[in-house]
Parts: sequence; structure tokens; C-alpha cells
Amino acid sequence: MDRDVWHERLETSADSPSELFEHLQTRTDQGLEYYYLPDARHGLERGTVLVETTGAVVRGYPSVPRVLVLDPGVRNYFEGDRITIEEKLNGFNVRIADVDGTTAFTRSGYVCPYTTERARELLDPGEFFADHPEKMLCAELVGPENPYTVHDYDGVETNAFRVFDVRDRRTGRPLAPERRRKLCAEYGFEQPQTFGWHDTDEAAGAVRDAIETLDAEGREGVVMKSEDGQSLLKYTTEATHHAELAYAFSLPFEYGRDFLFSRLLREAFQTVEFEESPERRRERAHDLGESILLPMAGAIEAVADGETVGERHTVRGDPETVNALLEHLREFQLTIDVESDRRLDGERVVTFTKVSASTNDRIEHYLDGGIVDE
Amino acid sequence: MDRDVWHERLETSADSPSELFEHLQTRTDQGLEYYYLPDARHGLERGTVLVETTGAVVRGYPSVPRVLVLDPGVRNYFEGDRITIEEKLNGFNVRIADVDGTTAFTRSGYVCPYTTERARELLDPGEFFADHPEKMLCAELVGPENPYTVHDYDGVETNAFRVFDVRDRRTGRPLAPERRRKLCAEYGFEQPQTFGWHDTDEAAGAVRDAIETLDAEGREGVVMKSEDGQSLLKYTTEATHHAELAYAFSLPFEYGRDFLFSRLLREAFQTVEFEESPERRRERAHDLGESILLPMAGAIEAVADGETVGERHTVRGDPETVNALLEHLREFQLTIDVESDRRLDGERVVTFTKVSASTNDRIEHYLDGGIVDE
Repeated sequence: MDRDVWHERLETSADSPSELFEHLQTRTDQGLEYYYLPDARHGLERGTVLVETTGAVVRGYPSVPRVLVLDPGVRNYFEGDRITIEEKLNGFNVRIADVDGTTAFTRSGYVCPYTTERARELLDPGEFFADHPEKMLCAELVGPENPYTVHDYDGVETNAFRVFDVRDRRTGRPLAPERRRKLCAEYGFEQPQTFGWHDTDEAAGAVRDAIETLDAEGREGVVMKSEDGQSLLKYTTEATHHAELAYAFSLPFEYGRDFLFSRLLREAFQTVEFEESPERRRERAHDLGESILLPMAGAIEAVADGETVGERHTVRGDPETVNALLEHLREFQLTIDVESDRRLDGERVVTFTKVSASTNDRIEHYLDGGIVDE
Repeated sequence: MDRDVWHERLETSADSPSELFEHLQTRTDQGLEYYYLPDARHGLERGTVLVETTGAVVRGYPSVPRVLVLDPGVRNYFEGDRITIEEKLNGFNVRIADVDGTTAFTRSGYVCPYTTERARELLDPGEFFADHPEKMLCAELVGPENPYTVHDYDGVETNAFRVFDVRDRRTGRPLAPERRRKLCAEYGFEQPQTFGWHDTDEAAGAVRDAIETLDAEGREGVVMKSEDGQSLLKYTTEATHHAELAYAFSLPFEYGRDFLFSRLLREAFQTVEFEESPERRRERAHDLGESILLPMAGAIEAVADGETVGERHTVRGDPETVNALLEHLREFQLTIDVESDRRLDGERVVTFTKVSASTNDRIEHYLDGGIVDE
């Protein structure tokens, strides 16, 4: 399609098509030719997609800011009178749109063959897109069987979608949360649990109550939303900080230092704001220390024992989709170690490890007596 | 002095004077005009000094590499048959040379007025430099009263020097450790304790024994040295890792992420190499968690209470020297809050805080509800 047409079709601050297109990359997946935007630019979100084949725009999902202190953070951030609190799920964030058929795009703007197939199968959104062709479903793929994240939810044996947002594909504008909940219910799409509507000035306390409930269940956290759905803010549980640290430190050379530091900061501000007793704070400190040292020592011991460390995942689907997924992962320079490859109820179930090259290499280097220059 | 003469006088890999001088900075302190090298370049150590006034070269102290795993780290690193193990002290590393009088240079290559005065007073190296004008004393300024580090040693009430190396100023070449110990003893210079000489192949065990002793006393660690003193390698205690983390997390926005991560790594490799029992490892993890969370929460609470956080130091000396020191610190853009300023036994004793601007600002920002963009 002509670049001028794209430029007009997009709500972008880029002054000219060339200013925009210098940042776009091209890909072809499953016959779909598209551009995607690797980083937020010119008023467009990271992962924004332009489908060359059909002329469709699929805007990226916006980055959701966070506060470290709920009071006054929540009150200061939102302008309206009331906000709603919804659970933030720990899964894989995708946008599902009808562009030449139902297609799932990752946060970065790639077509994911696995999530696409799962979306067609589990959400069956044909009727929805027939009625609302211009909309996209923003959903979290949760459950133990997906190629990207691993978090168990009660009642989710393999995987499932939770639709947390419905947006206009071209403009990125969201439905108001109340409208969205009704619409998703009509089409039978499951959604994250809600913790209701609250006066903005008093919402910090309600968030804290929700966080306590979620923390006790080992769940991730909440997203707060304005009445129009345009303003979003997130906050997470202690359980999540520790779990994320434990995961990151099980592969200590794969995650950036900032990833680690940011979780530590969240913990410190939380224990202060929650006015934890010295005993409670010490208990949090002990859990924190365990989530750092034990997985890291475990990774070193595994490498010392000759094992290969990495992220272990199980996926399930029709054989071609699983094939397409593994190819898709390898295309991103990932080394995939397949551990088991079975058929179950007519589906192919593959357990594999994404080999964490940096962690294996660095740990081996230091175990061999490699020096650290300081 | 002519640049060609400097270039000839230095043992540098720089092909021309201009190649060398593009990296050098100039300063004047206490009447001394000099060049210093902010980063290691062309075979010269960081902090190498060229004194314009007298033509003296004072080479920088080399960066000492570290191993994370003693066995086979120590064996692989050293080429000779035996090595010596000396205590590594937690203080302030300076080089003391006779360049227009006894002068102390920091690791970075600045003249430190405070350390210079302390060196003249406490080491009184006039006789040494009369006999060995071409040598420099590489020493650690230890004790609670110094403007840079704070670590208590039994028997050191204010501050003291420990000479851990004697080198040729111009070439940077060290005396052999045995020769150095004798020479320092002759002139009455105190030195770090030694853990003796060991066969290189079996030294890892001796280091581990030394580390256990030092760890129990809350001391920093060891430096291993080859017979000629040219090869150096260091290794540190659990107590030090935790103390450094606690210090860094008491000012969480002043220290780089790499500083924090590197200490965590040392812990993980150490618990693995020392084959700690699950209980012992868990105890280490708990201490580690406390050294992260408690000081960080403390800093947040202090800022929330309206306090200003920073590094607190006490210094002691003649009034002009203390003045020169405070000016020297302010010149490096540090904000100095003087807490007390007294006379004791004819000396001026000042307690001050180097205000940690980033930590105060960032904590205030988040306490005010500032958002984190992710």
C-alpha cells in the first residue's frame, strides 16, 4: 500500500511518511505481509502493526505506568471521580484482530502462530468480528501451557484467554470498562475479576485490600482504569515480586540489572507504605533473600552438574501449529531443546527448553575459574 | 615539561605524545600542577599522575581481578609455584610518594589534602623517601575517621595506614612481597596481616580457611600475590558482600545496578563452592535479604520523615587541612552537610554528610506518587 495512505490512516505525530517508515520493520508470517514498530514512536505504541495485505492497522497495547506508593499515587494520577480495579493476570499479552482471519499479535507486533491458533480455538471470535470488524480483543493468554510465561491459575489446566480490554484497531481507543464487560459477557469471553468501582480519592485503600487478597493467593496484582478506559495504572503483590526475582535469578545472566533492581524497589516502597511490623518486614526480607540466592545457586549447581539451563515450557495444539511455533522461536535465534513430544487426545504436546545461552556461558566461565575484571 | 619528554619517560604503548595526552586531564592542588589519567589507557593504570612541577611520574594502582570460584580459579590464574595470601583491608586506597614533599594520591589520581596530611603525620615517611626517593607506598587508610569509607577495625580509633605494596613510582613495578614486608618493618610501617605462603595448587584451601577466619570477624577478604608481586587476585567474605549491599541499599539510587548485581553473584558462587547445607544457605539468603530490604526501607522512611540521606563521615586534623578537604569535596559537586565541628586535643573534628542527591530526589518523587514508566 502507498506510504502516504498509511500515513493518513494513522493517528501519528510523524510529519511525513518517511519519518514514520524509517522506524518500521517488515515481516511476513503465514502469508501475512506487515510492518511493525519495534519501539513506541510518533504517538504510536510499540508493536503497532500495518498489514500490507489488507490495509488494516492494529495499534500496539500501551505501556501501563506503575506507582510505587498508592497513597497519594492513585489520587494524583487519575483525573476523574471514580476508577475501577481489575485483576492484572500473569500471562502473555496479545491483541487479537480480524486481519485476513483471526490473528494474534504479540506485544512486540509479531504474529504468533501458536496464540493465533489458540485464539481461534478457545475464543472462537468469528461472530464477534462479524459484528465488530474494527475492534481488537486485548487478552492475556494464561495457564501453564504457553510458550512464553508459566504461571498456574486454579481451573486453568492448559491455557485460556482473559479479555481485559477491547479497543478500536485503528485508533487504539478503548471501550469504557463497563461497556467492555457487558460486550465480552455477551460473546462469552472470560474477563479478569473485578474489584468494583471506587471514588478516586479513596481507591488506594480498596487497591490495598485487593492486593492483600491477591497476594495471599499468589496472584500478580491489579490494573486501575478510568471511566473511559483511557488512563491505566498498575500495582503488584509481594508474591509477584518474589516470584519474578526467583525466575530471573534462576537465569541470572538473561535478565537486565534494571529488571532486578525495579522489583527490589517495589518491595521497599511496599513494606514502608503498608507500615509492616519489624517481624513482618524481616519475614519479607527473608523471602526476598531466598528468591534471589536459592535459584541462582541452583542454576550454578545445575551447570556444574553438566545440565543446560533455560526456560521450560509446554505447548499444545495441532501438529502444524506447534511446528510453526517452534520455527517461529528458532527464527528469533533461540536454541530450543525439545524434551518430550507426544500426542494427547489428537493434539501434539511438546515440552521444550529455551536454552539461556548467556547464563550457561557465564556460569561455565566462572566455574572454570574465569576472572572478573573490576 | 615537554610532552615528548613525558612520552619517553613513561612506559606506555601510546605511539606518540598526542595519543597519550588526549586522555590526560590537568589539575592544580596545593601548588602542585599535574596531569592525571581518568581511565586506564595505553598500558597506564587509571589514576597515573605526571607532576608538571617536578617531572615525577606516579603510576596508578592496577585494578585487581577477582575470581568467583577459588578452585580452579586460583590455580589457573597464577603461573608460579607458590603464592602468598594477605588480608585485603576495607579502607581508602592511596599512593603516597615524595613529589615536592610527601603527597597522597587517590585511586583516581587526585591529590587528597586530608590523606596527605594524615600520611605525613601517621607514617612520617621522610626517612623512607630519603633512602628510596623513587618508590611509592601503596597503602590503605583504615578506621572510622576518613572522608571516604567507614569500617571499624579493632584498635583503630581514628585512622591508620596499612602499607600493602611498595612500587617504583615511574614503572609501577612492585617489590616482591617478602622484600616489601622486611622493608616496611624496617621503617615501622604497619602492614596487612599475612596468611603465609602456599603451593599454588593447594592455595584455594588456604584461602578458604583465611576467608572463614576473616568472615567471622566481619573483615573484607584477601589478596593473593605471586612471588614477584606482579600478579594479584582477590576474594571477599560473605560479611563484606552483605555489608556492601546494606550500604548501597541505604542509598539505593547512588550505586549502579552492576554494583548490586556483582555482590549477589559473589554470594551465589560462594555458597555453591563452599557446599553449604540447605540450612546454612537459607541463613545466608535471609541475611542477604535483610541487607537489601531493611536499609532501603530505612532510607525511604527517613526521607518520608523529612530527613536528608547521605554518607556520614567524621574527619580529624589540623583546621586548615580539614578546610582544604571540605573544599576539595565541594569541588567535586558534592553537597556537604556539616553536622558538628569541634576541637579535640588541638585538632579539628568534623562530622558531615555527603548528601545523596539522587536518592533523596527519587525517593521523594515516588513518595509523592510519581509514576514509573515501564
